[in-house]
Amino acid sequence: MKIHGKPYRTIWPIGSDKVGIIDQTKLPHAFETLELASMEDAAHAIKAMIVRGAPLIGATAAYGIALAMRADASDEALDRAHDVLAETRPTAINLRWALKRMCDVLRNKPREQRAAIAWAEAAKIADEDVEVCRSIGEHGFKILKDAAGKKNGATLNVLTHCNAGWLACVDWGTALAPIYMAHDSGIPIHVWVDETRPRNQGASLTAFELGSHGVKHTIIADNAGGHYMQAGRVDLCIVGTDRVTANGDVANKIGTYLKALAAKDNDVPFYVALPSSTIDWTLSNGRDIPIEERSADELLKMTGRTPSGTLATVEIAAPGSPAANPGFDITPARLVTGFITERGTCAATEEGLRALFPKA
Amino acid sequence: MKIHGKPYRTIWPIGSDKVGIIDQTKLPHAFETLELASMEDAAHAIKAMIVRGAPLIGATAAYGIALAMRADASDEALDRAHDVLAETRPTAINLRWALKRMCDVLRNKPREQRAAIAWAEAAKIADEDVEVCRSIGEHGFKILKDAAGKKNGATLNVLTHCNAGWLACVDWGTALAPIYMAHDSGIPIHVWVDETRPRNQGASLTAFELGSHGVKHTIIADNAGGHYMQAGRVDLCIVGTDRVTANGDVANKIGTYLKALAAKDNDVPFYVALPSSTIDWTLSNGRDIPIEERSADELLKMTGRTPSGTLATVEIAAPGSPAANPGFDITPARLVTGFITERGTCAATEEGLRALFPKA
Repeated sequence: MKIHGKPYRTIWPIGSDKVGIIDQTKLPHAFETLELASMEDAAHAIKAMIVRGAPLIGATAAYGIALAMRADASDEALDRAHDVLAETRPTAINLRWALKRMCDVLRNKPREQRAAIAWAEAAKIADEDVEVCRSIGEHGFKILKDAAGKKNGATLNVLTHCNAGWLACVDWGTALAPIYMAHDSGIPIHVWVDETRPRNQGASLTAFELGSHGVKHTIIADNAGGHYMQAGRVDLCIVGTDRVTANGDVANKIGTYLKALAAKDNDVPFYVALPSSTIDWTLSNGRDIPIEERSADELLKMTGRTPSGTLATVEIAAPGSPAANPGFDITPARLVTGFITERGTCAATEEGLRALFPKA
Repeated sequence: MKIHGKPYRTIWPIGSDKVGIIDQTKLPHAFETLELASMEDAAHAIKAMIVRGAPLIGATAAYGIALAMRADASDEALDRAHDVLAETRPTAINLRWALKRMCDVLRNKPREQRAAIAWAEAAKIADEDVEVCRSIGEHGFKILKDAAGKKNGATLNVLTHCNAGWLACVDWGTALAPIYMAHDSGIPIHVWVDETRPRNQGASLTAFELGSHGVKHTIIADNAGGHYMQAGRVDLCIVGTDRVTANGDVANKIGTYLKALAAKDNDVPFYVALPSSTIDWTLSNGRDIPIEERSADELLKMTGRTPSGTLATVEIAAPGSPAANPGFDITPARLVTGFITERGTCAATEEGLRALFPKA
């Protein structure tokens, strides 16, 4: 994707010992990049959500292993890097998938080759993610094209929650990839962007992405989606996911479940876009997915631009009142119309997933 | 209710020609009162949400008529005051109920008596609202007591959306009145307070009220309630309403519908507390209730306390992205477990309402 006319990925190698990222905590107020020089830098970037989005977390963790191998290629360093990075975020399974893949490829290699192998494998994970997202986009595009065909030229209205765009991946995005392709192909499309409290990834990141690409969109409170569905003003929903269990249950940003309920209640199709690395075949029920509890400050404080152009953080809630901040919820498979994966679309069932990914 | 040890209502006469109110736009950052000296002051206070909450809007509109009669007791002035005040907010029906009651009592009275009659009638509306809310509290208290009885001494967890406490009424509140009574009677109770974007009435007003009264509570993102219901951490929901149609459909703060869906999906009882003045017998379906569209700025800007203790307003969303801001949604009667009114509880059906209010 392009920012100010310059093509960007969300993560890129700098030489062979540093990694560039976009500081997503600064968006949409400023576009700044950062350099990761160590495994610890990578772990901090994931934990502090300087990078976020399940696929990008996976790619960053892979580069974290590569940075660790640059510093110390021992088994002990590999184990330690794995453990430190695995602890950064509990819900997104791509993190564990990427770490396992890196460890598998490095484990029985000579120490002197590990740094180069790790660097190449991390780059491969990043490149593959771009291709996987492009495929998701193409399969999802067919769904949007069909839906647009029923609108007699009227604008297709899609609702999304949180950010599952190119900022959440290496490029393209999962949920937003089909939207970019539909827009680029000339389909009249408009996106309802859930603000996505408490971190406002919708209002900050998805709106920034869509605006940068010229896609028509409107920010709405998370509370408003049900109303627009009741009013017939949402044609379909597409969201990303941080982990899908074998039975088709979906962990995604807190509040996704509420939108899926409203979609079901109003016969609005509800799609989940995901790379197969997001499937956790070891769990057979979404209830078993650990849900990250994040800082109450994310809810109690808000950062924004002052009239003078500086950034300020203000306390917004009643002084002294406590807050709780679960980061994700589980949308039961029964509420999901279908999955959009790099191999095509399928039902949100174990059979549906297995038909596309028989050997996983 | 008491603030800093001093008993307050949300609206009170000052002499016989001014009306005192709490500036609710300043809460929770500061507790300030204002004086309304004219009908136009009252209309502005309602429109700018300096006062808000369906019952309090009704009482303020009644005093608005009284202030108008002090200035000019003609039929023309009465008609104008009615029309100006009726236009301030479209969704809350108590506004129209109070205006009709004031006009009915004034219409055929001599002009020289109108100011005194209006002043007395507005005071009566306010006093009656306090008694009505107290009754709602007592009937709702029975429900909470029963629910608490099934918890074997464990804390009862109640979720509420927006603010339907004493700040939304003249005193006591609707949805929060039973909670105050349960707390005061020694029932261990904890309230999940929906932040209630975009104006944050939960985090600002409900949390302020509950904190001031010593009721245990936790602010959560509007997105989080479904997750807590799935986890079995919500025993019941109580909300207020701005208008209930004859069939039992409920207009309330945007996002209420999503919580009602989640409650249904998780077998959590979902109650709506209301004075009978909130029932619109002229409409037989919630779809016919006009939904107020409010300023996008409510979503795009946020006001809070800076570290130095001053207030600041910051822009929080992607620059240039538009926003839409519907103020209310409709919760279908089928999702409502029951209504809690000043005459007792009933099913969310026309039969249920008519059994309690046969002659309305």
